[in-house]
Amino acid sequence: MATKTPPSSQTRSQSSSPLKTSPWTHASQREQQREIKRSAVLQTAAQLFNEQGFHATSLDDVAARLNVSKPTLYYYVKNKDEILLQCVRQGLQMTLDGIEASRKAGGKAIDQLIACMQVYGHVVTLDFGRCIIRVGDEGLTPEGRKQLRRQKAAIDLEFRRLVAAGVEEGTLAPCDPKMTAFAIAGALSWIGRWYRPDGEYSREEVVQHCIATLLNGVLRRP
Amino acid sequence: MATKTPPSSQTRSQSSSPLKTSPWTHASQREQQREIKRSAVLQTAAQLFNEQGFHATSLDDVAARLNVSKPTLYYYVKNKDEILLQCVRQGLQMTLDGIEASRKAGGKAIDQLIACMQVYGHVVTLDFGRCIIRVGDEGLTPEGRKQLRRQKAAIDLEFRRLVAAGVEEGTLAPCDPKMTAFAIAGALSWIGRWYRPDGEYSREEVVQHCIATLLNGVLRRP
Repeated sequence: MATKTPPSSQTRSQSSSPLKTSPWTHASQREQQREIKRSAVLQTAAQLFNEQGFHATSLDDVAARLNVSKPTLYYYVKNKDEILLQCVRQGLQMTLDGIEASRKAGGKAIDQLIACMQVYGHVVTLDFGRCIIRVGDEGLTPEGRKQLRRQKAAIDLEFRRLVAAGVEEGTLAPCDPKMTAFAIAGALSWIGRWYRPDGEYSREEVVQHCIATLLNGVLRRP
Repeated sequence: MATKTPPSSQTRSQSSSPLKTSPWTHASQREQQREIKRSAVLQTAAQLFNEQGFHATSLDDVAARLNVSKPTLYYYVKNKDEILLQCVRQGLQMTLDGIEASRKAGGKAIDQLIACMQVYGHVVTLDFGRCIIRVGDEGLTPEGRKQLRRQKAAIDLEFRRLVAAGVEEGTLAPCDPKMTAFAIAGALSWIGRWYRPDGEYSREEVVQHCIATLLNGVLRRP
């Protein structure tokens, strides 16, 4: 047990020639790895919810698609309801971030409105965004539902504000901003119901066509 | 036990003075009564599905709101899934009947399209129509889902046909009829998500505003 080398020297010698690579990753890297895996769980779950419905999807289905065991999933998520909450929250947050960016970019209300329509239309074609439209929030806890409703209300309000500002600046026709905002959100949201990523149209085509319909109307102009 | 009156005479006497009212109702009346009660079950269930969600609603809730016992409900419906199927089917059938009526009325494609938009927009403000939009069909059997998808596809196709005919007759701007029909159906369907029968707008206002937005677009014309 006794050693000839004094402890201080041994320590010095170890620190002067450290292992080139540790078999353990750095804490920050582990956290990053965990986040990547957690994202994969959420994304896969969202795809399954969209394909076969929230209630028909089990955590076994999610685990099977990711080639892991169900206990492994529990290292990243609490349960199915929490997954749904996170999926919808992230979809809504992407929308809110996009809206915030277009607000910061400034410019006319009509241009900001079009930018927001593009963001919203794009998000509802993605996995998390399709969840917002297709799954609904009845599987959530009252607290989770409240959080999401706050985010949804913020999006609604922003659309209404921009419609009202567009009427004010004279680029939009006089209207009831609340009802017009609902018509805009409805037509765009519906994309999340019918759009298939492997279908005949690209995301971009679908969103642009819908925006053009909302801006110009379906009637032919003389 | 013996009687002085001969059986034949007794029989004659009974048939010559029948009871003015039978304590049993006539078979056709019973059938009508049953239908009225069955409708009340469906309507009440639809209201509860729309208020608190399909999965969160039990047959006990439906029975309680109708002041009957759960076993009584089973005389009219098989189970919750069948109730949902019937609610959505009736909502879709109302739409198809309205579309059929406007097709029979004839006239220009644009007028038929507007009539169909009115029918569709109106239906999604009603209990069964709100079910179509709010509940989704994942609670149903594959056979039930197939039936409903057939009805939905018929509605989609009619909208596309009328949009294409409108472009053809020159009343609608050139477009991709499939995507335009989705934009129309989306904006109108969304009414079923946000409209509250006890809210600030009437059914008629909401539907007319949405149709005007879709026809004319949101942009101000010079």
